[in-house]
Amino acid sequence: MLKNDILLRTLRGEETERPPVWMMRQAGRYLPDYMKLKAQYDFFTRIQTPELAAAITLQPIDQVGVDAAIIFSDILVIPQALGLEVLMEEGKGPLLPKTIQNKNDIDALDGQNVEEKLSYVLSAISLTKEELNSRVPLIGFAGAPWTILCYMVEGKGSKSFDKAKQFCFTQPELAHQLLQKITDTTIDYLKAQVKAGADLVQVFDSWSGMLSPVDFSIFAQPYLLQIASALSPVAPVILFPKGSWYALPELSKSSASAIGIDWAIDPQLARKMAGTNMVLQGNFDPVKLLLPIPELRKQVKKMIEDFGVSNYIANLGHGILPHIPVDHARAFVEAVKEYELVRS
Amino acid sequence: MLKNDILLRTLRGEETERPPVWMMRQAGRYLPDYMKLKAQYDFFTRIQTPELAAAITLQPIDQVGVDAAIIFSDILVIPQALGLEVLMEEGKGPLLPKTIQNKNDIDALDGQNVEEKLSYVLSAISLTKEELNSRVPLIGFAGAPWTILCYMVEGKGSKSFDKAKQFCFTQPELAHQLLQKITDTTIDYLKAQVKAGADLVQVFDSWSGMLSPVDFSIFAQPYLLQIASALSPVAPVILFPKGSWYALPELSKSSASAIGIDWAIDPQLARKMAGTNMVLQGNFDPVKLLLPIPELRKQVKKMIEDFGVSNYIANLGHGILPHIPVDHARAFVEAVKEYELVRS
Repeated sequence: MLKNDILLRTLRGEETERPPVWMMRQAGRYLPDYMKLKAQYDFFTRIQTPELAAAITLQPIDQVGVDAAIIFSDILVIPQALGLEVLMEEGKGPLLPKTIQNKNDIDALDGQNVEEKLSYVLSAISLTKEELNSRVPLIGFAGAPWTILCYMVEGKGSKSFDKAKQFCFTQPELAHQLLQKITDTTIDYLKAQVKAGADLVQVFDSWSGMLSPVDFSIFAQPYLLQIASALSPVAPVILFPKGSWYALPELSKSSASAIGIDWAIDPQLARKMAGTNMVLQGNFDPVKLLLPIPELRKQVKKMIEDFGVSNYIANLGHGILPHIPVDHARAFVEAVKEYELVRS
Repeated sequence: MLKNDILLRTLRGEETERPPVWMMRQAGRYLPDYMKLKAQYDFFTRIQTPELAAAITLQPIDQVGVDAAIIFSDILVIPQALGLEVLMEEGKGPLLPKTIQNKNDIDALDGQNVEEKLSYVLSAISLTKEELNSRVPLIGFAGAPWTILCYMVEGKGSKSFDKAKQFCFTQPELAHQLLQKITDTTIDYLKAQVKAGADLVQVFDSWSGMLSPVDFSIFAQPYLLQIASALSPVAPVILFPKGSWYALPELSKSSASAIGIDWAIDPQLARKMAGTNMVLQGNFDPVKLLLPIPELRKQVKKMIEDFGVSNYIANLGHGILPHIPVDHARAFVEAVKEYELVRS
């Protein structure tokens, strides 16, 4: 039994006394204790050493007071598990020296034995669960197939992922083969995370907003739905298709338990598009955490009122930024936690 | 009298036999003749030499057959006219060594005599008009105040313009001072472009989609509306707030003649949000120009049908990409021009 299960109750559609709250990238670069570990250990050491990953995952629980932990890891472990090399230069983002361009490249990807290949994530999850000692639930995660394809084809970050789109638009059959291979591996991986102790999972489609509504329905949505269907019998699923506000009506019919949204859509319109029953998660602009704390608290309160207290998880609309003062992150969390008091 | 005035007739709200068509960045890097000039002359020489700017502006009229010319220039001439240094490294994007951070920086900006400071653009417009010889109308343009603020505060391109947003959110009074100064100068500049011969103007808010609907209504929209009001008595105005689909209902009440949209919104929904009377412009995904030509033509036809032939300007949803084959650009334009034949 979890001591704080407000996130799980919300995901089950129960009425709660206030919205649960966590922050994307809450375990990371704005926390001084994280920066100390970052100075000592390189990126892959941090995510591949269960003791380090668990310690980093726990930091925001103790220091910021969020209602859930999210395992410290990276979405690019899937391309690695499929056999691609992923380099990570600090401050420069990921680099995949060998990208996917043709059928041979796709056939060469080996999606077998993901539990073994990514056993370090599963160990980190088990260890974190132990150290959490039932305080809050633990979120597992993976990148969405479209977003993973973006990196596998483009080889690095991009403003608009034109090469990935070109690959999909001009070779749709190959694109679907690749997306299906990523999807199958991701489903195995997320199920293994749940078996290792993750209480729920989130799927990050960080670049889905680069696609038009029609192309989202072709290259992103079917694979998100497959993952939601496969995982929902074992754990609640949150889908976060950043920038794809237009998909809210369709995704709200899926077996996902919640949909994450970014700040480019008004909460009231999002609620209208998603219907009253789907749980929504978001959507504070991460830059707004820099507001003076009284103003920050006021805007958090307004956000909750705009979404409505029910069927809502307070979060940012994207990851927290490196230069956010810890007390501002804490003020965000506290403003949500105090909301029930404000109401009465 | 223009020989081809279909764009102007559409902007006046008249029924036309087919939609007019042009492409953002149509004068540029996908054209071999442009690349020859680029190899010979650096960026500022190209935009500051009226003969070169005019020659580049004319290339797509002759080679691709668009219904309008758009003067070859850059939105960052406004920061330059205000007194900031702008460096342009080929392939690297703009760099402003001295950025705007405080009140002194803003007070030091000198928005006077923009006609004199940017006389080279006005000369390029006059020369282009002469050489166009009334074949098609000439579009003048400027960056929107929010987008110009982004570069002036951030100093370079960015994935999310967090520093610019931080400046606006934490020092809103200063932000409005800066936005007003940019707006005043931009209005002078666009009026001078019309006097020099521009038949209409487009305002590019390339980064407005980084703002939430509420913040767009505070930091972007009021200045777009000021520009539309000031210019509409002398020339039709097209507003292009990229990514800000949510602003369609409000902007449709403005004195602008058309609103440009990108591909992240379905044409039918855009039409519903804008109402039947506002002219819409867009929104082909530039990557789709790489489709095989028969498929490309099919998707252009579908786009026109989704927008409806009336009150519509066919265009891309953003600038054309460097690696688009010229015959694909031409196929896009021809597919629109032949639409009237397809209809009958």
